[in-house]
Parts: sequence; structure tokens; C-alpha cells
Amino acid sequence: MFQSFDSKTSAGKAKERLADLRNVMRKHGADWFLVPHSDEHQNEYLPERAERLAFLTGFTGSAGFALVGLETAFLFVDGRYTYQAGQQTDPSCFTLKDLIADAPSAFAKTVFEKGEIIAFDPWLLTISQHETWAKLCKAAECELSSATNLVDEVWSDQPAPPKGRAWLHPIHFSGRSTEEKLSELKAAINIDKADYLLLTDPASIAWAFNIRGNDLIHNPLALGWAIIPADEQKPLIFMDQTKFSSNDAAAIAAIADLHSIDDFTDQLAHISNGNSIHCDPALVAHHLGQIIVQNKGNLIKKRDPVILLRAVKNEVELEGARNAHVRDGVAMVRFLTWLDHQTPGKITEIDAAKQLETFRALTAKEMGSALQEISFDTISGAGPNGAIVHYRVTNDTNAALMPDSLYLVDSGGQYFDGTTDITRTITIGTPPPQSVEDNTLVLKGHIAIAQARFPKGTRGVDLDALARMPLWQKGKDYAHGTGHGIGSFLNVHEGPQSLSKRGMESFVPGMILSNEPGYYREGHYGIRIENLLIVTEEIAIKNGDKPMMGFETITLCPIDLRLIKVEMLNEKERDWLNQYHATACNTLSPHLASADKEWLKAATRAI
Amino acid sequence: MFQSFDSKTSAGKAKERLADLRNVMRKHGADWFLVPHSDEHQNEYLPERAERLAFLTGFTGSAGFALVGLETAFLFVDGRYTYQAGQQTDPSCFTLKDLIADAPSAFAKTVFEKGEIIAFDPWLLTISQHETWAKLCKAAECELSSATNLVDEVWSDQPAPPKGRAWLHPIHFSGRSTEEKLSELKAAINIDKADYLLLTDPASIAWAFNIRGNDLIHNPLALGWAIIPADEQKPLIFMDQTKFSSNDAAAIAAIADLHSIDDFTDQLAHISNGNSIHCDPALVAHHLGQIIVQNKGNLIKKRDPVILLRAVKNEVELEGARNAHVRDGVAMVRFLTWLDHQTPGKITEIDAAKQLETFRALTAKEMGSALQEISFDTISGAGPNGAIVHYRVTNDTNAALMPDSLYLVDSGGQYFDGTTDITRTITIGTPPPQSVEDNTLVLKGHIAIAQARFPKGTRGVDLDALARMPLWQKGKDYAHGTGHGIGSFLNVHEGPQSLSKRGMESFVPGMILSNEPGYYREGHYGIRIENLLIVTEEIAIKNGDKPMMGFETITLCPIDLRLIKVEMLNEKERDWLNQYHATACNTLSPHLASADKEWLKAATRAI
Repeated sequence: MFQSFDSKTSAGKAKERLADLRNVMRKHGADWFLVPHSDEHQNEYLPERAERLAFLTGFTGSAGFALVGLETAFLFVDGRYTYQAGQQTDPSCFTLKDLIADAPSAFAKTVFEKGEIIAFDPWLLTISQHETWAKLCKAAECELSSATNLVDEVWSDQPAPPKGRAWLHPIHFSGRSTEEKLSELKAAINIDKADYLLLTDPASIAWAFNIRGNDLIHNPLALGWAIIPADEQKPLIFMDQTKFSSNDAAAIAAIADLHSIDDFTDQLAHISNGNSIHCDPALVAHHLGQIIVQNKGNLIKKRDPVILLRAVKNEVELEGARNAHVRDGVAMVRFLTWLDHQTPGKITEIDAAKQLETFRALTAKEMGSALQEISFDTISGAGPNGAIVHYRVTNDTNAALMPDSLYLVDSGGQYFDGTTDITRTITIGTPPPQSVEDNTLVLKGHIAIAQARFPKGTRGVDLDALARMPLWQKGKDYAHGTGHGIGSFLNVHEGPQSLSKRGMESFVPGMILSNEPGYYREGHYGIRIENLLIVTEEIAIKNGDKPMMGFETITLCPIDLRLIKVEMLNEKERDWLNQYHATACNTLSPHLASADKEWLKAATRAI
Repeated sequence: MFQSFDSKTSAGKAKERLADLRNVMRKHGADWFLVPHSDEHQNEYLPERAERLAFLTGFTGSAGFALVGLETAFLFVDGRYTYQAGQQTDPSCFTLKDLIADAPSAFAKTVFEKGEIIAFDPWLLTISQHETWAKLCKAAECELSSATNLVDEVWSDQPAPPKGRAWLHPIHFSGRSTEEKLSELKAAINIDKADYLLLTDPASIAWAFNIRGNDLIHNPLALGWAIIPADEQKPLIFMDQTKFSSNDAAAIAAIADLHSIDDFTDQLAHISNGNSIHCDPALVAHHLGQIIVQNKGNLIKKRDPVILLRAVKNEVELEGARNAHVRDGVAMVRFLTWLDHQTPGKITEIDAAKQLETFRALTAKEMGSALQEISFDTISGAGPNGAIVHYRVTNDTNAALMPDSLYLVDSGGQYFDGTTDITRTITIGTPPPQSVEDNTLVLKGHIAIAQARFPKGTRGVDLDALARMPLWQKGKDYAHGTGHGIGSFLNVHEGPQSLSKRGMESFVPGMILSNEPGYYREGHYGIRIENLLIVTEEIAIKNGDKPMMGFETITLCPIDLRLIKVEMLNEKERDWLNQYHATACNTLSPHLASADKEWLKAATRAI
């Protein structure tokens, strides 16, 4: 099982830990200490030792920030986590704030007083974040003071750094050799005449060197650092060598110098002297920027060039993604068939999540692959729990799938050939009142995206509202983006593209995105319909003036027909759904046993 | 007649004028001279003396930039004007460049050589533009050198500054007194603790002091400057007093000190000393910024606070806009009835434009108002001329409205109570092949915007693609935004909101926008359907969770039913059109003579 259902929170200890931290702060002369939810690599999934925010506050969400003063403390979380944070934290310790509306650095202005010392861990703020805080502290006449991590000083049983296995990701999955990728990167480095490119994001190192690993949950990454020279010198990779097999270590040695992690900062200092280093200020730790500058290096602050290269998948990766989705679709159909045969009220969210993971692992194995991981903790939400956007079921919250309710399941698999992410909303018995109308509105938005055609230069921000308009017409909306980028056996959330109000990156053929509008009726049900899309090449349209891009939907799995009010769909929407269902049925059926096949045929019948 | 149909261009003189300018440049030691299309106020419509770009190059479009070197010269125009610039300029003098793709300051990098002197007129570059050029020149190791305007030195018969009449715009049109507006502005100035607000945009001065004037064509503005103190001192207005009636001059004197324009820079220098001046870097001339800094003033660079206040119309202005649109709609119906009774091939674009202006003036007079101006030069495009997005008909281009072609007419009126802007596309005889399908696609986009509902925080960028999607599906698009803001008896193009890919300003109830998708089939026809919209308050929707804003369409005029393929519209689109037509018919009929009424009834019949 790649997921546990334990309650990870420890709100009950917040008072004591906060008191300990404040003692340490006083010892260091700090009036405030910044506790971001981040590690040295700006990973989304943190190694356990970096879960300082959860240790301190009890809040276990994937984004957040605490601002701890000697008298008061504030915890910032975004709209997805407002409810969860309220449940997990002690309001006598932490005042909750909105991470977006009251950005910590903006809010801090209102609480910092002249002359105060603001301590922070320079490994955990990026260069950009540090600039923001430095500016604010200057304006508030406070001192921003680099410190060791004060939370670590009170965390006696802080876990050690991870030591997962790591390996080379073969070219029949990656589609492109490290040599080819390095030559693309050198071209990018040369644009600004940098001497070196510093890579600190494990996903960038994974892509550039075709390395995968097991250091974190869900994201198949090996932690480390890399320095790529613009000239013909060998790149430097800083990673624990013992993570690799001797064969892989030898293969890496042929293209790069593999160093111990402990050598990294010394080597960075060494190569900085007189050289220009390309650093992404949104990814690289302030501490590393300081090392470069203090050793007479010149920082070239520019986006990590891997980001766009990685987002645009090559043909091998796209074919892998399609194959992974056949496997994932078969597992989903087996799961949904199983689910339909359960007696309402008799199974729980955890039962369902376990069963789905079991089908994923079993199906992958039977189809000649293997489930490497799940892409993220399955969101298995029955009834009202489905309305909690980033719900994670634990033994404490585990609810039964009751008759006449909705069940929302958002899950995905990590396969060698691709990463999947799918959400379906299923009726358990008779659909509850309003849910069929609401689900049909969400489906209309989903289809509007799936059917979209658009010219070169179109960005996510241009399309996001198409998915919302059917809901907006009825006074409804959802408080999350419509879609995010997805890696190729890499992170399930990957930039730079997104389908959202913040999506300013132009779409490029080969990018993969999710299409996941939803609707959440608090206290009743949650609805989300999520498929993955590939951005397609521009193709000519008969009688048209210019070729248009579009989306190829690669997720294959029925959308619950019992939750669709057919008369609310127009002809084109019905055509899309029938076509989508026919493709899913035809593609998945050959891999299914007859009972599952029968279920699928009925579930994908034309409407 | 508020418009002339003379050809204003003078491409034939470009060689000689360019040679003259280069002589002057050599005399001043300049290697390059920058010729933006702008005046000291960043007006859209320039006083004739500021039409330096047209004088030099022959190009008469409303946006452009020339970069003149001793050997080469480049003219930058945007996609709207590519064709026109090609027609109006001498390719042996000016190489055409795309104003958007090859921004002049970015392109300059490729042609400036180390040590060159780049001369510019500091009155014509804004503070922001100057920063861009200064940065670029520093990088290119060139010297950016402030100069008198070198074009003026070779323009022997340069017109004098305008001396139009000016007057106070009464409160029954403006809806808010200058005192109220000044108190709002003082609050805005105080946010950043500025001592003074410098207003250089005549539209901002017009709004703040309820002044209108006749210095420019189409925009009812009086040129001048204003300085508004944060404290209780009187504001300073710098304007030619003789433009006002003695009554109005006395009324202004009660709330502001009216100074001569010639006193402006001295007074600005005087008040700068030790004070902070709020300046909009996108509007204020670099020259003025220099005066402030050189006189020990502190520049607070921030958007002109009038911009947002002006965009959000008050109830009186909104009621005025609705009334102006009844008048304008009556004029349009009289025009369209007349047009339908002409023999195809017998009238020209100029005949039609004149007739429309005549109906506007006559109707306004009969309905108790008076047409003050037209909002812009009427775009009267027959057949292929309709495909030129910003076509202005001249005696040289004047074409007949031929049988079996489309006619596009984009026009507007300036009334005391509001500014209008409407485009209709009319078939002359039988519609040409494909045009009915294309017009229906444009109409579907228009309706998608008109029907949109959206939550607080929605911006133009979020909605723009709704108008394009029906065209995109067919491989078509249009190379302009979907809509712009409009003033209240002020500029027909007004920010900050827009319905476009660049529209990052949130919509606020009371804003007025145009909704004008189009389609242009080069060599055949142009199609555009334009109505004006008011952003409505958020209202609750039955069974919805949150109130939604929307649009109220205020333009009243039939959309040509002969150009609509009914089966391409879905039920909601048909409902919208029928409802729109019923409203137009009911509202306008009481003001029409019986023949026009009959025509309108048929033109607005339900489909």
C-alpha cells in the first residue's frame, strides 16, 4: 500500500512546541521566526524532516506558512485548506490567515515593529522570497536575520534525510538521452552567456540526467544538486552514490562527475569565483545565492530552462502517457464495477481507496508493467467529505459510502511510462437532490475545455473561464484552478503551464494538462470530473484561415451517466460524450474480464 | 460634418523630409532620433502640430513609432495598420516593423552601435518609456540624449497649438461635483503620503474638474495640466483662460486657481521642492519627471487615481449613457432603413458615412439634445474595404456599396450625456458566399459575452476567448481585442478595463465596455458586431451560492437577420437575439416615423 490512513496531525502538542520554539527564539534574540512549508529544494512533497510546519502547528496541508512571534503566531493557508487547518490546529496557538488574500509578507507589515529581529532559515527561502522579505523588513525598519533553523532545535526526534533507492530512467521511457538534453540546456545557458547552470529542483535534475528515485512519497525523485557548465566540462551531480546500483553509477560517471552531497556548497563556492551562474530565483535557496555572491560569482536570475523543456513531452513520452492511461483506465473500470456491486452503507472511504490501489497494482502487473507509486494520496470522499477539495481520509475521518449520496475519488498512478491523475464522481444509489444538475454543469465545463480549439499563443488564463461559465450562469463556481501540468513519471503537479486565472504560459503541443472543473456543496457533496489532456499540434481546419491547436483527452474511463441530465447538454456536448465513451469502451474492453466488460458497455452506452 | 474624407497622407514628401531631418540630426550630433506617435499628454487623438509621425512618414494611423538613423529608418505599426502603412509609406525610406512583435526598444538593440547618440524629445516619452530606452542604451553603450524636437526644426508650417472652446460639464450629466471628486482624489493621494498629484492626461483633468473642450477632434478635451494638493490648498489648473466663458471661468476660480499654460513648468518646479509628487509613469512626460527631481521633489510613481474612478460610472452617467443610446439607436435605424432603400452600386462609402452623420445630428436635435461630435472617424467599409480593421474612407479609396457584398459601418456619437460606439454589418443584396456562416460565428461570440455571468474579480482576459471560440472552432480569429472601455462624454477608448488578452483589470459594476468580435476575410469582406455593455451589480441567482455580475447591453439597433444562419444558433442564443431585438423595437419605435417603424419591426422579427 503506497498510502497510509493514519492521522498525521499533532495539534495537541502545539502549545508545548510553540513555547519551546519561543524559548529558542529568545535565546537567539529573535522576535519572529518564519516557518515556510518548504525544504531546501522547494519540493511539493517534503521529506519528513522538513515537515516543520506540521510538527509545529499540526497542519498537514501541502502549502502554508507560519509567522511566529514571541506573543502571537499566525498560520497562513489557502482556500483549499481553510477547513482542514481549522480542524488540525489549536486556535489558542495560531490565528488562521488566508495565504492568498493576506500574503504573509504583506500581512507582516501590520505586525512587525521597528527594531525587531526577524529570523529565518536561508535554506528555506528562495532568492525571490528573500528579496520580498528583505524589502518589507527594510520598510518596517526591522532586521531580517539569517539563522539556523530554530524549529530543528526543538525537534528532538527529527527524522534523518531520506535514503531512497535511485536509478537511471531508460531511454525507451524518457525518449531522449542525457547527452541530447545537456546540449539543449547548454544552448539555453549560452543565451545569457552564463558559465554555469545551477539546478536545485530534483525534478529538473531528474529530467536532465534521466534519474528517478525514491526519496519522497508520490514524486519519484532523488534529492541532490547539479551544476551544468556551459562549456565542455563534465556536469557535477551531488547525490548519495550508494543510492544507485553500481551499473547505474558507472553509467552516470560516463557523462557527469558524481559527488557526495556534502561536497556541494564547497564546490559551488569554488566554481563561483569570477563566473556567472544561471539560477532560478523562484527555486534556488537564498543561502546558495549568498554563497555565489560571497565567492565573487555573478547571479544570472532567470527561470530554470528545464521547466519548459520538461513540460513539452516528446513522442516517446506521449506514447508512454497514452499507454499508462490504458492501464489506469482498466484499473478504474475494475474499481467502478466493484464499487457498483457493493451494498450502499457497507464500505468506507478507506475500503474504497485500498481497493482502488489494489486494482491499480494488480492491473499494472497483469499488463506487464508495475505500479511504482500512486501519484498522490487518494482523495476518497463520501458525501459531505467530497466537498472538502483536498480531503485526505484518515482513520479518524473515515466515512461510509451511504445510500443516496455522491462519492468523489481523485487518484493517480506512477508508472515508468507515465503519471496519471483522474477524478470521477459516482452516485451511491439514487443521486441526491440537485446533484444531477450540478454534475451536468461541471460536465458542460469539462467538455468546453476538451473540445476547445485555439491558436498559437493561447494560455491557460484564456481558457479557464470556459470551464466555469455553465456554473457561473447558475451562481456557482469552484475555488481551484481548472487544470495543472503533469510530469512524465515525474511530479503530478508540474509547471509552467496551467489552466487557471494565473496561467500566463502559452500552450505548446506536447504539454500535458489536467481538465478538472468541479463543484462543492458544503455539507452535501463534492463533484469533480478530471481527465488528462495532451496539447495537440496546430492542424488546418477546412475553410479556416489558420491552423488551430486543441486537446487530445487521454484519460479513459466512463463518466457516470446516472448523474447527467441529458436535456441540459446541447448536441455537440452529447456528441463529445458519446464519442468519448465509445473510445473508452473500445480501448479498454480487450483488457477486461467479461463482467467488467459488460459493466463498461452499459456505463458507456450512447445517450 | 465632423469628419473629412481628404487623404491626409503625404508619403511623396518622405524622402525630402527625411533628408532634412537627417541634416538636423547631423547638426545636433545625433545618430538616431526617436519619433513616437504621441504628444505631451499621451493623447490618442493628437493636435495637428503633434502629428510628427504622419508629417515625416506619411502614415496616419493612431499608433506607431519611427526610429530614424542617419542611414536607415524603421516604422513600427501594429497588426491593425500593416496594410495601411504599406499603402501610405515609401518603402525606400522606411522599413516596416511590427510594433508588438518587434517592440522598437527591443529592436533598437540590434541596430544601435556602441558610442552612438540617441536623441529624443523628453516631452514625448513617458517616464516609463524613458526608463526602457535608458536601460537599453546603457546596455548598448549608447548615449540617450534629451533634445528639442528635431522634426519640428524641419516642419516649417507646423500648426499652432489648438485653441478650442472649453466649458464646465454640468452635474446633471457628470453626476458628481468637482468637490466630491477632489475629496476622493485626496484620499487616493494620501494612501502613499504624497503631497501633490500631477495630472497630465486631459481626460483625467476633464473628469476631476468636470471640464470639457474642443481642442482635439472626437475627444471632447481641453488641453492643460493640473496639480492637486493633498491638503486644503486650492488645486492648480493650467489652461488657456480665454477658452472659457466668463461665467465658467468664475465658477472654476471658486474651486481652483486657473493659471496660464506658460506658468506650468515654473509652478511645478516651485511645488516640487522637498515634496512628494504622485505621477503616473505611463502618462507623465519624462521632462516633467526631470523637473520634479531636479527641484528636489520626490516622484511617487503610481497609476493616475482618476483612471479607475472615471471608469466606474455613477448612476447619472449610466442613465445618460442609456439615453444617448436611445437617440443613437433611432439615428442608426433611420440610417439602416435609408440604406436598405438604396440601389446597390449607386452609393459610396462616403455617401453612407455622410448620411449616417446627418441622421445622428438630426435625430439628436429632434430629440432635444445635440450631437457634439462623432466619437471617431466613421469606418465605412464596402466589400474588401470592410476587411481593413481600422479603415478610414478617403476620396482616394471611396468605393461603391456593390450588389451582393457586405458593408461594415463602425461609428459613434458624442452627446453631452454619453459617448456611443456601434458597429453593424449589412448585406447589400444577396450575402456573398460564406458570409452568413462567418457572421453567425461572430454573432455567437458576441452573444457569449452579452450573456456571460461572472463573479467578482473577473477580468477581461478571463472572458475574451468566449467571444473567439466559435471562430476558433472553424480555424478563424480576429486580430484585435474584443472590447475596450468608453468614457462618459469623454474618450471613446478609455482604460483601465478591456475585454482582451491584455485585460488584467477586474470588472467593477458601472464600467462600460464594447463587445465587438469580428471576422475579416481579406479581399472579400469584414464583419463586426459591436454593442456597448454596462457591467452590472452582483445579483443573487436562484439556487446559486454566490451573486454574479453580468452585462447590460445598452446599444439598441437590429443585427442583420439576413446574415444569420438560424440553425447554427442554439436555443439560448436565439432567445437572446429575439429578446434583444424585441427590446430594441419597443424602445426605439415610439421615436420613429411610420416607414422607419415598419422597417424596424421587420428587421427585429423573432426567428
